[in-house]
Amino acid sequence: MTRIVIAGPRGNMGKEAVTMVTETEEFELAAVIDRKYDGMSMRDVDDLPNLDVPVFTDAGECFEKIKPDVLIDLTNPQTGKVHMKQALLNGVRPVIGTTGFTEEDVAELSSLAEEKELGAIIAPNFAIGAILMMKFSQMAARYMPDAEIIEQHHDRKLDAPSGTAVKTAQLISEVRQEKQQGHPKEEETLPGARGAEFDGMRIHSVRLPGLVAHQEVLFGGEGQTLKIRHDSMNRRSFMPGVKLACEAAMKLNVLVYGLEHIIE
Amino acid sequence: MTRIVIAGPRGNMGKEAVTMVTETEEFELAAVIDRKYDGMSMRDVDDLPNLDVPVFTDAGECFEKIKPDVLIDLTNPQTGKVHMKQALLNGVRPVIGTTGFTEEDVAELSSLAEEKELGAIIAPNFAIGAILMMKFSQMAARYMPDAEIIEQHHDRKLDAPSGTAVKTAQLISEVRQEKQQGHPKEEETLPGARGAEFDGMRIHSVRLPGLVAHQEVLFGGEGQTLKIRHDSMNRRSFMPGVKLACEAAMKLNVLVYGLEHIIE
Amino acid sequence: MTRIVIAGPRGNMGKEAVTMVTETEEFELAAVIDRKYDGMSMRDVDDLPNLDVPVFTDAGECFEKIKPDVLIDLTNPQTGKVHMKQALLNGVRPVIGTTGFTEEDVAELSSLAEEKELGAIIAPNFAIGAILMMKFSQMAARYMPDAEIIEQHHDRKLDAPSGTAVKTAQLISEVRQEKQQGHPKEEETLPGARGAEFDGMRIHSVRLPGLVAHQEVLFGGEGQTLKIRHDSMNRRSFMPGVKLACEAAMKLNVLVYGLEHIIE
Amino acid sequence: MTRIVIAGPRGNMGKEAVTMVTETEEFELAAVIDRKYDGMSMRDVDDLPNLDVPVFTDAGECFEKIKPDVLIDLTNPQTGKVHMKQALLNGVRPVIGTTGFTEEDVAELSSLAEEKELGAIIAPNFAIGAILMMKFSQMAARYMPDAEIIEQHHDRKLDAPSGTAVKTAQLISEVRQEKQQGHPKEEETLPGARGAEFDGMRIHSVRLPGLVAHQEVLFGGEGQTLKIRHDSMNRRSFMPGVKLACEAAMKLNVLVYGLEHIIE
Repeated sequence: MTRIVIAGPRGNMGKEAVTMVTETEEFELAAVIDRKYDGMSMRDVDDLPNLDVPVFTDAGECFEKIKPDVLIDLTNPQTGKVHMKQALLNGVRPVIGTTGFTEEDVAELSSLAEEKELGAIIAPNFAIGAILMMKFSQMAARYMPDAEIIEQHHDRKLDAPSGTAVKTAQLISEVRQEKQQGHPKEEETLPGARGAEFDGMRIHSVRLPGLVAHQEVLFGGEGQTLKIRHDSMNRRSFMPGVKLACEAAMKLNVLVYGLEHIIE
Repeated sequence: MTRIVIAGPRGNMGKEAVTMVTETEEFELAAVIDRKYDGMSMRDVDDLPNLDVPVFTDAGECFEKIKPDVLIDLTNPQTGKVHMKQALLNGVRPVIGTTGFTEEDVAELSSLAEEKELGAIIAPNFAIGAILMMKFSQMAARYMPDAEIIEQHHDRKLDAPSGTAVKTAQLISEVRQEKQQGHPKEEETLPGARGAEFDGMRIHSVRLPGLVAHQEVLFGGEGQTLKIRHDSMNRRSFMPGVKLACEAAMKLNVLVYGLEHIIE
Repeated sequence: MTRIVIAGPRGNMGKEAVTMVTETEEFELAAVIDRKYDGMSMRDVDDLPNLDVPVFTDAGECFEKIKPDVLIDLTNPQTGKVHMKQALLNGVRPVIGTTGFTEEDVAELSSLAEEKELGAIIAPNFAIGAILMMKFSQMAARYMPDAEIIEQHHDRKLDAPSGTAVKTAQLISEVRQEKQQGHPKEEETLPGARGAEFDGMRIHSVRLPGLVAHQEVLFGGEGQTLKIRHDSMNRRSFMPGVKLACEAAMKLNVLVYGLEHIIE
Repeated sequence: MTRIVIAGPRGNMGKEAVTMVTETEEFELAAVIDRKYDGMSMRDVDDLPNLDVPVFTDAGECFEKIKPDVLIDLTNPQTGKVHMKQALLNGVRPVIGTTGFTEEDVAELSSLAEEKELGAIIAPNFAIGAILMMKFSQMAARYMPDAEIIEQHHDRKLDAPSGTAVKTAQLISEVRQEKQQGHPKEEETLPGARGAEFDGMRIHSVRLPGLVAHQEVLFGGEGQTLKIRHDSMNRRSFMPGVKLACEAAMKLNVLVYGLEHIIE
C-alpha cells in the first residue's frame, strides 16, 4: 500500500487526483495539504469529498506527522518547488505537475534526490496518450525522417502552434539528420499554405469551434505513410499519468524530468 | 445502347476510357479519333487494344460516317475545342475533359448546344469523389460556416495550395456570410502556423513522400465536427465520372460546365 | 423578431435551448411551460436563469395569453404530442424533439398543420452535423455505391450498432441498386471480422473508453475513397439544429418529419 | 562500402531491391543470383537493368568468387533456406524476406550464425511503417490497455482479418493483463457489429474498392484516445526495411527474426 499526500486538493486537477487515489486499490490517501482549513478533516470542508482524512496547511508538519510515501503536488510553480524540497528532506517521494522549474532548480533538486536516494518526478504533461505520441514520433523519425505535424484546437486558443507541437518537432529534430522537406522549388501561391517551418519540417495549426485538443504526426516514405494521433477530451485524461508517476517514484532513486523517460 | 467515339485513345486517360466504354453494358465503342492511323482498325495499331473498331483522323468525317451519340474527347484544349464544335454541328453530344476554355468559348458553345438541342458536358475534373467532396462542403458551410481545409500531396508537387483546395474554399465562400475565423487576438509564434488565409478561412498544405492526392474539409460547430475527406490513388478514379457525364449528356439538351451541376 | 415558448426548460436540452433563444438576436423568449411553478417568473425559480419571463403549467393557457410564434418542446413523447396539437390549434408553430410518434400520430398532426397552414417540425435528431453526414451519405451512394459504416462510442453503450448507423445504412439502401459487397468467396478466419451485414453493406461498432459519439461512412470506388465523419462531443451540438428548425417552421406551412428534409 | 549480392533480381521485390542498392551510396551491387543466365552480365539479360554486374546460378560459387558482405534473398522459402545456409558457411551475412521457416529451421540457422559470429536477418515483413505500427501498439498497450483494430483492404482480399491485424492483436495481448473489453451487457442487434473477438479485444475488417492496405489501432482511456495508422500503397514501401536490415546485419553477430527487434 502506497501512502499518498495530495497538495492542492480543491483545484481541478487536485479533485481528479483525490478521486484517482481513493479509487486505486494499492493507494491510500493519507492527508491533503491546503492553504486553508489546517487541522480539519476533509469531511468538514464544503469543497472537499466526505472522507475522514486530515488537512494540513504546513507541508513540513504534514510530512513529519503522516510520514507518507509520495507527495502529489498540483498547486502552482512556486509552492510546488517549496513542497518538493520539503518532501525530499523528509524522505517523501515527490510527483510534481508543473512547468515553472529553471534548469538550476532541476539541477539542485536532482542532487538532493540523489543524495537522499529518493525517486522524484517532475512532469509538465501528465497526458499519457500525448507522451506516447511524442515518444513514438521520435522513434519513427529515425526510420521515416519526413514528418509534418497537424495540431487542432478550439478557436479560443490564442497561440499557434501549440506547445506540444513544438515539443514534438524538437524531439523529431534531435534524431534525424538535418533535412529540408518538400520540393526545393515549391511555391506558395497563398502565403502560409505550407505552414510553419521548424528545422526543415512543417507544423500546421487548425482552430475551429467543436475541437478540443488533438494532434496528428504524419510520416511519409516511398509508398507508405504512418500517422500517430492523440485526441484529448478533458482533464480526467491526466490521471493515468499521475498514477504511473507515483508508481515510478516508488521504484526510482533519482529525479526524472518528463514522463516520457519512465515509459519503456 | 449509347454509341460512343473516343478522341485521344492512346493517352493515359484515353486508354482508361476505352476500357471503361467496352466494359459498360449499355455503351458501344463505335470508333476512335487519333492523329495517326487514319483508316486502320484498332486491332492493327500496336498501341491500341485488339478491337475491330475503325480509326479516323478527321473528326468531321468520323461523325458523318459513324453517326455516334456521344464524343468523349481526352485530347488537349485546342483540339478539344475544335472537336466539340464539330460534334455539335453533326448532332453528336460532346463530353470534354479539359480546362482550357475561355468564358467566350463556353458562351459560344453553349449557344450552339442550345440551338441544336444537344446535351454537352465540359468537365475540368472527372474525379467523382472530389466533386462530391466539393459539393458537400458547400452544402455543409450553410449550416456549419466555420471550415478549414487540409490538402495532402506527394512532395514532388510544386504549388501550394492545390487547385482543388482553392476551388473548395471558393465554393464555401459563396454560401456563407463573410466571417474571420479563429480568435481575433490569435498569434503565430512560428509564422505560417495558421496556414493560408482565404476569405476568413484557412488552408493547410501537407507535402510528404508516400502521399498521393488527398483532401480533408473540416467543419466545426459547438460540440461537434464534420469531416469530409477524399483520397485519390490513380487515374482510374476518373472513369465513373466520364461514364456519368456520357449518361447525362444523353438526357440534357444544354451545355453544362462542371460535373458538380449534374449531381443531385 | 420570432417569439418563442420553450416547454421543458429545466431539462438538459431545455436549459441549452433557453440559452440559445436568449442569445439569438432575432429570437425572443416569450414564456416557458413547466409542470411546476405556474404563475411565477423564471427569475423566482431556483433552477431557472434570472430572466423576467412568465412560467405556465397549462400549454393552452400559455398560447392564448402569450400568442407566441413558435413552441420548442423538449419534454417527453407523451407530453410532446399533447403540446403539439394544442400549439397547432392555437396558431403556434411547433418544433418537437422526440422519437415517440407513431405513423398515425404523424398523419393526424400533418393534416392538422395543413388545415391550419402552419409550419411544424418533428425532429428525432437535432445534431446538424449528423443530419448532414446522413444526407451526404445517401447522395454519395448514388455515385459510389460501395459503402461501409464504422461507428465509435464509449464503452458504456449497450447496443451495437448505433441507431444512427442503421439509419444511415437504410438511407444508402434506398438509393443504390441491390448489391452484395466484398469478395464473393471472402472468409472470416475469426467470426465477426467483417462486421454486421445490412442489405449487402457492412457496419462496424467500436467501443472504447475516451470515445464519445463518432461515425465514419466510407465509400470506395476504383482508385479513390470518400469518407464522411461526424464527431459529437456534447449536447450543445443540438442547438444549431433547434434554431434551424424554428426558422424553417416560420417559413413552412406543412409538417416536416426529420431535419434532413429542410436542408438544401 | 557494403558489397551486396541479390538473389531473385527479376521478381517484383528483386527489381526494387536492385534499384535500391544501386541508388544507395554506401552500397555496391557486387553480383546477382538468378536461376538462369549463369555467367552472363546483367546488361546482356533483357529482363535486367543495364549494369555491368555478373550473374551466377550457383550461390556457393557466387559467394566464393565475389566474397560479398551481404546476401539479400528475395526468391522463395525453399531456395531462401538453402541460400541462407550457404551464405553463413561462406562468411556472408544473409537478409532473407520470406515466411516459410519452421522453428527448427530458425534454431539451426541461429546456431550457425552464432558459431560463425555473423549477423543474419529473417524478415516476414519489410514494411517499416507496419513494423513501427505494431511495435508502438505493443508499447501503448502497457499504458492504455483498451484497444480495437480496424484494418482496411481492397475488396479482392479473401481472408478477414488480415495477418497483420492478428499479429498486432497478439503483440498487444502479450503485454496487457487479461481483460474483456466493452460493456459486460453489450448486445449486438445485428450479429457481427462488434467485430471479431481476440483475447478480449475486437478486430474489424473493412473491404472496399479503392482501398489498398491500411490499418488503424485505436487505444482509449478516460478522456483521451490514441490512434496509430499505417497506409501502404505499393511494394516500394518495403525497400527502406530491406536497407535497414542490411545495415543491421553488418553490425550484428547473431540471427534476428523480425525487423521489430532491430528497431530501437
